[in-house]
Amino acid sequence: MLIKEVESFIEEDLGYDDVSCTIVPDRPAEAVIFTKEDCTVAGIKEAGSIFCYLGIQAETTLKDGDRLKEGEIIFRLNGGAVSILRAERLALNFLGHLSGIATLTRACVDTVRKYSETTRVACTRKTTPGIRKFEKLAVASGGGDTHRFNLSDSVMIKDNHIKLMGIEAAIEAAKKTSFTRKIEVEVESSENAVLAAKLGADIIMLDNMQPNTIQETLKILEGKGLRDSVIVEASGGISRENLENYAKAGVDVISMGSLIHRSRWIDMSLEIVNLDI
Amino acid sequence: MLIKEVESFIEEDLGYDDVSCTIVPDRPAEAVIFTKEDCTVAGIKEAGSIFCYLGIQAETTLKDGDRLKEGEIIFRLNGGAVSILRAERLALNFLGHLSGIATLTRACVDTVRKYSETTRVACTRKTTPGIRKFEKLAVASGGGDTHRFNLSDSVMIKDNHIKLMGIEAAIEAAKKTSFTRKIEVEVESSENAVLAAKLGADIIMLDNMQPNTIQETLKILEGKGLRDSVIVEASGGISRENLENYAKAGVDVISMGSLIHRSRWIDMSLEIVNLDI
Amino acid sequence: MLIKEVESFIEEDLGYDDVSCTIVPDRPAEAVIFTKEDCTVAGIKEAGSIFCYLGIQAETTLKDGDRLKEGEIIFRLNGGAVSILRAERLALNFLGHLSGIATLTRACVDTVRKYSETTRVACTRKTTPGIRKFEKLAVASGGGDTHRFNLSDSVMIKDNHIKLMGIEAAIEAAKKTSFTRKIEVEVESSENAVLAAKLGADIIMLDNMQPNTIQETLKILEGKGLRDSVIVEASGGISRENLENYAKAGVDVISMGSLIHRSRWIDMSLEIVNLDI
Amino acid sequence: MLIKEVESFIEEDLGYDDVSCTIVPDRPAEAVIFTKEDCTVAGIKEAGSIFCYLGIQAETTLKDGDRLKEGEIIFRLNGGAVSILRAERLALNFLGHLSGIATLTRACVDTVRKYSETTRVACTRKTTPGIRKFEKLAVASGGGDTHRFNLSDSVMIKDNHIKLMGIEAAIEAAKKTSFTRKIEVEVESSENAVLAAKLGADIIMLDNMQPNTIQETLKILEGKGLRDSVIVEASGGISRENLENYAKAGVDVISMGSLIHRSRWIDMSLEIVNLDI
Amino acid sequence: MLIKEVESFIEEDLGYDDVSCTIVPDRPAEAVIFTKEDCTVAGIKEAGSIFCYLGIQAETTLKDGDRLKEGEIIFRLNGGAVSILRAERLALNFLGHLSGIATLTRACVDTVRKYSETTRVACTRKTTPGIRKFEKLAVASGGGDTHRFNLSDSVMIKDNHIKLMGIEAAIEAAKKTSFTRKIEVEVESSENAVLAAKLGADIIMLDNMQPNTIQETLKILEGKGLRDSVIVEASGGISRENLENYAKAGVDVISMGSLIHRSRWIDMSLEIVNLDI
Amino acid sequence: MLIKEVESFIEEDLGYDDVSCTIVPDRPAEAVIFTKEDCTVAGIKEAGSIFCYLGIQAETTLKDGDRLKEGEIIFRLNGGAVSILRAERLALNFLGHLSGIATLTRACVDTVRKYSETTRVACTRKTTPGIRKFEKLAVASGGGDTHRFNLSDSVMIKDNHIKLMGIEAAIEAAKKTSFTRKIEVEVESSENAVLAAKLGADIIMLDNMQPNTIQETLKILEGKGLRDSVIVEASGGISRENLENYAKAGVDVISMGSLIHRSRWIDMSLEIVNLDI
Repeated sequence: MLIKEVESFIEEDLGYDDVSCTIVPDRPAEAVIFTKEDCTVAGIKEAGSIFCYLGIQAETTLKDGDRLKEGEIIFRLNGGAVSILRAERLALNFLGHLSGIATLTRACVDTVRKYSETTRVACTRKTTPGIRKFEKLAVASGGGDTHRFNLSDSVMIKDNHIKLMGIEAAIEAAKKTSFTRKIEVEVESSENAVLAAKLGADIIMLDNMQPNTIQETLKILEGKGLRDSVIVEASGGISRENLENYAKAGVDVISMGSLIHRSRWIDMSLEIVNLDI
Repeated sequence: MLIKEVESFIEEDLGYDDVSCTIVPDRPAEAVIFTKEDCTVAGIKEAGSIFCYLGIQAETTLKDGDRLKEGEIIFRLNGGAVSILRAERLALNFLGHLSGIATLTRACVDTVRKYSETTRVACTRKTTPGIRKFEKLAVASGGGDTHRFNLSDSVMIKDNHIKLMGIEAAIEAAKKTSFTRKIEVEVESSENAVLAAKLGADIIMLDNMQPNTIQETLKILEGKGLRDSVIVEASGGISRENLENYAKAGVDVISMGSLIHRSRWIDMSLEIVNLDI
Repeated sequence: MLIKEVESFIEEDLGYDDVSCTIVPDRPAEAVIFTKEDCTVAGIKEAGSIFCYLGIQAETTLKDGDRLKEGEIIFRLNGGAVSILRAERLALNFLGHLSGIATLTRACVDTVRKYSETTRVACTRKTTPGIRKFEKLAVASGGGDTHRFNLSDSVMIKDNHIKLMGIEAAIEAAKKTSFTRKIEVEVESSENAVLAAKLGADIIMLDNMQPNTIQETLKILEGKGLRDSVIVEASGGISRENLENYAKAGVDVISMGSLIHRSRWIDMSLEIVNLDI
Repeated sequence: MLIKEVESFIEEDLGYDDVSCTIVPDRPAEAVIFTKEDCTVAGIKEAGSIFCYLGIQAETTLKDGDRLKEGEIIFRLNGGAVSILRAERLALNFLGHLSGIATLTRACVDTVRKYSETTRVACTRKTTPGIRKFEKLAVASGGGDTHRFNLSDSVMIKDNHIKLMGIEAAIEAAKKTSFTRKIEVEVESSENAVLAAKLGADIIMLDNMQPNTIQETLKILEGKGLRDSVIVEASGGISRENLENYAKAGVDVISMGSLIHRSRWIDMSLEIVNLDI
Repeated sequence: MLIKEVESFIEEDLGYDDVSCTIVPDRPAEAVIFTKEDCTVAGIKEAGSIFCYLGIQAETTLKDGDRLKEGEIIFRLNGGAVSILRAERLALNFLGHLSGIATLTRACVDTVRKYSETTRVACTRKTTPGIRKFEKLAVASGGGDTHRFNLSDSVMIKDNHIKLMGIEAAIEAAKKTSFTRKIEVEVESSENAVLAAKLGADIIMLDNMQPNTIQETLKILEGKGLRDSVIVEASGGISRENLENYAKAGVDVISMGSLIHRSRWIDMSLEIVNLDI
Repeated sequence: MLIKEVESFIEEDLGYDDVSCTIVPDRPAEAVIFTKEDCTVAGIKEAGSIFCYLGIQAETTLKDGDRLKEGEIIFRLNGGAVSILRAERLALNFLGHLSGIATLTRACVDTVRKYSETTRVACTRKTTPGIRKFEKLAVASGGGDTHRFNLSDSVMIKDNHIKLMGIEAAIEAAKKTSFTRKIEVEVESSENAVLAAKLGADIIMLDNMQPNTIQETLKILEGKGLRDSVIVEASGGISRENLENYAKAGVDVISMGSLIHRSRWIDMSLEIVNLDI
């Protein structure tokens, strides 16, 4: 985490005059952070940056993506009591939120693995404004794919693009733009999937298609010898509940906004453990 | 939203070289944003700031806190096609996320209102790093109380403070700090609730107490003539599911981290509507 | 002090191409900072942050709030000659300005202590734009109260609010806003003081009232059994010169914008002391 | 004022959740800002930037440097009630602080003008960290000279430089640095004044010299034909009280840190004037 | 250009106290910006942002990429004289520098077009720190390809990567990272070109290969049926002088750091034209 | 380099999700940076700041301004492989660009030294936006003069100023502005050179004058006894090619925008050297 990011997050939680932590005598203290439920952990580096900035020694043997059991300790902290109290909520907010995303992603990837060794589970650009990079890396910690980060790292031609200029013109324009970025096209029919593949799209996103329609589309692509030259992604309304059906359908990627926008935090806690240092 | 915030959010989603929106011919376009499910809306101002920055005219008759039915239109947009595509995801991310919080809060407040006209439903400092103020205002849009914003606007004496210095010393130190901030004390027993009230705490937070223990504690406070001089808050593990029991218990405030950390986004969409301008 | 603050202050004093300090050969040097007049010191941490950023070892046994005699040394510095010259003016600007505030506050608090053990001397939001938090903490170093920091940490209903909506509506609206912030009401008459207290204000500020009118108002509040439930603050035109009269009046708080806007700097100096290291 | 500066000052005074101004119904309002004492006004542009950012129409016929009588109106404001309340304290803090500096400067310049048409009154780098440029421009509004702004716009060789490298080496090094910046040398004796002038200093600052010693030094410089080629500045411990003696001494510039560090704010006020718009 | 960027560039050129432009009476003025040599123009938007920020009306009928003859007018400006003087150097610095890049790119693209309709001329990450995006867009204005913007928008496996982990492991790791980014591999031999193509690289960069070796490598790839599935890029030491030989070699992309690091500014000027407005 | 500058440059090159360096196993690595052509080096500190921020140990015995032979090593680096790959391009961009400027400056200074021991070679405000201070310091490393940094550190009266207010009024206004800044006047005729010198300009810039006209002007100034009281600068269209003629002309300063806007990068490289640590 950049220093300017750490400072901005600390300012948000501290305000201008910390009247809460400063009432405590500033003696050395020890604390632990532990999880209160099973999870796949994420946010280790982000929490570490906060501890480091505040001068707290933070020991951990874990790394993002590790699976933890209820009660497991994530960090052992040594530092001034005031600093530890200041770090507490901010570090837990990162750990709880990001571990929630990693845990949900892990569960979805595990589900998909029952049916396919290679199908990727990816998030989307539906992320909380301001912390996209941390959320996307939490998805990666859970075994998922981060998909594109922003409007600059690949070209995605979506429904509104197609309304504005048609699929052919859009793909042609995208090809001119850059030879280093992949071109993804969102389609809602087999016909357009075939068209996009023929026109040279790198990735075809089947938007809001039912699993059986997806399977048919894949067969049509295969029949026309186009299956191998494109990556096929299923997207739209896929959640942990209905994921199995998509996993069976044979796509290369299943993208789920819900990895982030339906995740819930993992319950974690910081406890002062030893006052006789 | 400050201009520097708008720019920072736009940079996050746009990256350095928007290769996605710029393939579109930049002609005038119209679009609508609508909700795909019933909700209490929030994020109107935040989305408005983004449209304004990008030179898009955005009309709406709604304000944060309004209840919407599936299909209702939130914004009608007029502007350049490239700008509308650029605004799309960022505006939706704010609207979807914040409306999710407002909708959950509204549901919780409605539940509590069945039992009490005055009990407040409040969020906590468990917020997504970087956008606390927007999330807290979404809670307010849903009828909730924003609770304190940071470590500077009131003093909360929590378990770790008490471990470090004891309840008496902590309250005494807090009183010295400032005459303009309220002092809240987190207690886990009726004895400490009484002690804190006697020592002059403004707010007593009953942490992780079962509803029946809460009721007993309130009676004890009342018996000692301390009930009227303190605000009593229940907190710890309260979710929409078990909320009714706390609503019946007679506290002044029920605080729920889950308003934010278990909320899920409302599904909303932007659609280009008219190409013959 | 945040790193971004240190860098911004250094940029202000250094400009883009320091042609003044860089003419000096960059050999190790020692220096002292001392006060040229008696004072209560403040700014130790701020100056310390600057020395730290510039790689200067700074030793001190003092802390903010200590009373110093003319000639006392505040810091002993070891570092590169160029860095010491760069730190000089900026560190002295903080020390001189903040010690000026602390010294004036200390004198006012001492005056008030002759008449009352508990009456607080507080500053206001009349602070130099950009460094409010440092100035308020200097007031605290001098034994004063920082009062509210900004428009978010407590609600103050002032004359213009009352003109716009009336005192009853204002207090009612303020109560709805938040249960964690205190409500302060500025009044100019005993009648309104009583009204505000009855309506549940936490703090009553008697604005521009003469000491004898203040005393009468306190009696009226007492007569109505309202004195104990409110904090009473005198404010408006109070300076070190007329402070005694207010100190005798029996209020809980005396707030003085003049602690900051009439303070003058303490004269301090940095001297290179030893060139034979 | 840059937009990022306006936003930073507004954040300082507003905090994260303005609970004070937002209780007011946001209807159109009118207000005036007026001075409660005679003064030379400064801060018109700074206040104007704040009003502009907050969407308040601000009319004024004044410019920085104008002399005002008690009661004169500086701004007539039209805007939303909430915005006007938000702008109030911040605008007044700039106007009061900067007008205080301009007023003191004006008084000092007027004093000097009794004895010399050309002697400049200048401030120094003793400025409040964070707002140097505004303070220096306030000095200019009062008829003073802003002196150098930072360590980059001219070279000043001070006592500590001379201790570190001697006066000859320092001037030689300074000359090498840049042909576009003037070289100023701080001296405490006539001998060094002569030496510095001979070595080609552009400005000689006579530091902490009594007025009669200054006069002697000027005569010596004149005797050696060096007077015309240098600007002579008196500095050190000069305040409004002892200024006349220096004004009579015949120097080109009198620099006074006290223009800023002993100034006191001018008392100004904002009043809502018309509610029936 | 973001507002924060405009402000940062203006601060760089203006410093804290513009003593140069402010000596001019601030009356309305007109000016033109014109080119003193033939060129392909770039920087229109950047200059436009500066004029807009400073309140200057700027009219132009040109867009980036237009070819201009010596003497052609780029902008007609109307605004305050002080503002125009302030904008002058900064606007010209953008226009001169970026037009230099666009002009060199245009010349290189024209050279390549003699031999191939489709071969792209691309820049690299060798850009001036701080303004990469403006420089890359200037390359695009000249008809070139911007190549990847940063380490996040595609994976390039370079010599140092291969030293650290070998080509196979590197490609395998890259594939795991992301399905949305292309994988480019830098090779110095035909063998490695074939290997990289077989392993699934999207782009093969032939580094520092002579044109005849490039042609042989292309034949080998073709012979193995690998030519169509990869984009082949020539890179390393290619300048405008030796470009023709690479243009004839049949690669898909020729990348040239020299488009930026050997470009020279186009000479442009701002002239006040009419003082009788 | 300020930390905020380092972070901003790193963000530009790294983007949000470094997919390029992170594929490498993060083991310790060693690398060298060396020059591939003879040069005068600059950018040592800037590169050093980047290595330091990324936790890379960087050893060097060089300082800016040293002359290097092809193949000489500039830095020996020790650090994590991922960090070294991340630092590579950014550090080289600074070193290559700034060394290019220093090398060209050095060559120009050497040329001038053949004819004059004292004539300065200076750059102008024609610098790449965003990194002026680094480029100007590179000029200094090459033995050149940085000239003024911005519109605040000296007053330059240029053609457009003179058009707007005439030369007399401009010099008079400039003198009033400040006693600490030099006044430079750009003239295109001997008459105006004499006029400016008589009016007290500190520096006369002979703009776009041919060498023989310059010599005449110098003689005229000398004839009128004005030569010693002004610094004479030649400027306008001077490049390395035509520099000798100006060097012979006898001016005090030769300023050349081309030191920066016609410089080309020095070719430097980073090589991983030892993998068996």
